Amino acid sequence: MAIDIKASNKDVVILGYDADGQHMDTALSLGLIDQKATLEDAASVDVVIIAVPVNASLKVIPRVLDIVKDDTLVFDVGSTKANICKVVSEHPNRRNFLAAHPIAGTEYSGPEAAIKGLYNGKTNIVCEVEKTAFKLQERAMEIFHDLGLRIRYMEPKAHDRHIAYVSHLSHISSFMLGKTVIEKEKNERDIFDMAGSGFESTVRLAKSSPAMWSPIFEQNKQNVIETLEEYIGNLQNFKELMESNDFEAIYKEMEDTNRIKEILKGITIKSS
Amino acid sequence: MAIDIKASNKDVVILGYDADGQHMDTALSLGLIDQKATLEDAASVDVVIIAVPVNASLKVIPRVLDIVKDDTLVFDVGSTKANICKVVSEHPNRRNFLAAHPIAGTEYSGPEAAIKGLYNGKTNIVCEVEKTAFKLQERAMEIFHDLGLRIRYMEPKAHDRHIAYVSHLSHISSFMLGKTVIEKEKNERDIFDMAGSGFESTVRLAKSSPAMWSPIFEQNKQNVIETLEEYIGNLQNFKELMESNDFEAIYKEMEDTNRIKEILKGITIKSS
Repeated sequence: MAIDIKASNKDVVILGYDADGQHMDTALSLGLIDQKATLEDAASVDVVIIAVPVNASLKVIPRVLDIVKDDTLVFDVGSTKANICKVVSEHPNRRNFLAAHPIAGTEYSGPEAAIKGLYNGKTNIVCEVEKTAFKLQERAMEIFHDLGLRIRYMEPKAHDRHIAYVSHLSHISSFMLGKTVIEKEKNERDIFDMAGSGFESTVRLAKSSPAMWSPIFEQNKQNVIETLEEYIGNLQNFKELMESNDFEAIYKEMEDTNRIKEILKGITIKSS
Repeated sequence: MAIDIKASNKDVVILGYDADGQHMDTALSLGLIDQKATLEDAASVDVVIIAVPVNASLKVIPRVLDIVKDDTLVFDVGSTKANICKVVSEHPNRRNFLAAHPIAGTEYSGPEAAIKGLYNGKTNIVCEVEKTAFKLQERAMEIFHDLGLRIRYMEPKAHDRHIAYVSHLSHISSFMLGKTVIEKEKNERDIFDMAGSGFESTVRLAKSSPAMWSPIFEQNKQNVIETLEEYIGNLQNFKELMESNDFEAIYKEMEDTNRIKEILKGITIKSS
């Protein structure tokens, strides 16, 4: 995000703060940030972007709101929104805050994972926009526009319920697929040699950061458990169809699901 | 395969036969084949490549072996090997046949899905090589070499057991993920707008052909059921850890599975 903000605003000065000092040094040496900062520097800047694990957000956002100037915009980019909106709901500076979730990223994390143009054409979910001061909404929308993000407004609870299906469940299915294969294939050479690109794409998300994802599952616990129950139920049903040799039904399960093609076509058009 | 064989053997004449007449016409007009054929033409050619759903292979391979010349090589490229090797084991022309599985492909099927260089750098599992006539082994290896395939020899049962984990399970996990999300998100616009590239990669294989995959699951039933049981068990365990708020254990599950990074690095180096 820093890369792209800099690209469209040459004069901007970006301060970076991270709990991990080495990440700050790396971000500085890569030119992602102009100078290292402390959390207290939030008191003197125009915009604060909070991109930390969602459990940390619950503490960091109120602390930042405590000290910001009256006209400072604070927004977060976390993958859960209900608890975050709740924790700031009574804060005296609630109007400085905008809850956002730009749906974009890779399985990699840390400053070396930063890539240009990540947000271009992607969707940004904005929650409770009416609770943010009008002028700060405008500033946020300018930033999002420069990044190429498309905005969609949603209630925090609806966001968390939908995102459990289209993002969080994908990560668990991928992690558990990786686990199942690793457990079985103790001789890893067999995985190397036999795993084609199909395995690679389904298991890609299993490279994701536990520090980022464990708090997401915790913050969105009820919704994620519900998606897991439905997913496990569908897998169980598939297994039972196999056990009863009902391969006509197996065929139909797959045929019905093939219309994901049309749905994915929409995603691909959007992200290109 | 026809594209790449032609590219390295200018004088080769490729006859194509498909149960679907329209596919034959398309293959001809795309230049994938030089002429349309019948199954009976197998009696007069040098090499027969059998690329049909694995249940059809069980009938087609013996019929082809019935009529081929003494020095004709016949090989298949199916995703299961035990039943195929069994059905030809007593055939008088068993020595004409080589059981192969080049691990490569996309989620698309039919003649329009053909792409150049698909096999370059990929692994080809060859089963029961000792049962193929030595000269025909040599001819097969020349073809595989020209395609850029790396050979790995394996017993048919070991092939089916391993491939259930590293390929067949990926397809089921992807199909059932697609099903779970489609069932929930009846308003598809929500999927369009919220699904990022993570969902897209985990659900990609759910676009695959039911006509190809249903027979694979049938042919490899026992192994696939076993992988499904282990996968479901791991998902169930993950859900229970969430229910008991043991997010330290959740973190550790993910951290342990992160070493899939190193495994995938091997795959990527291989396929590039």
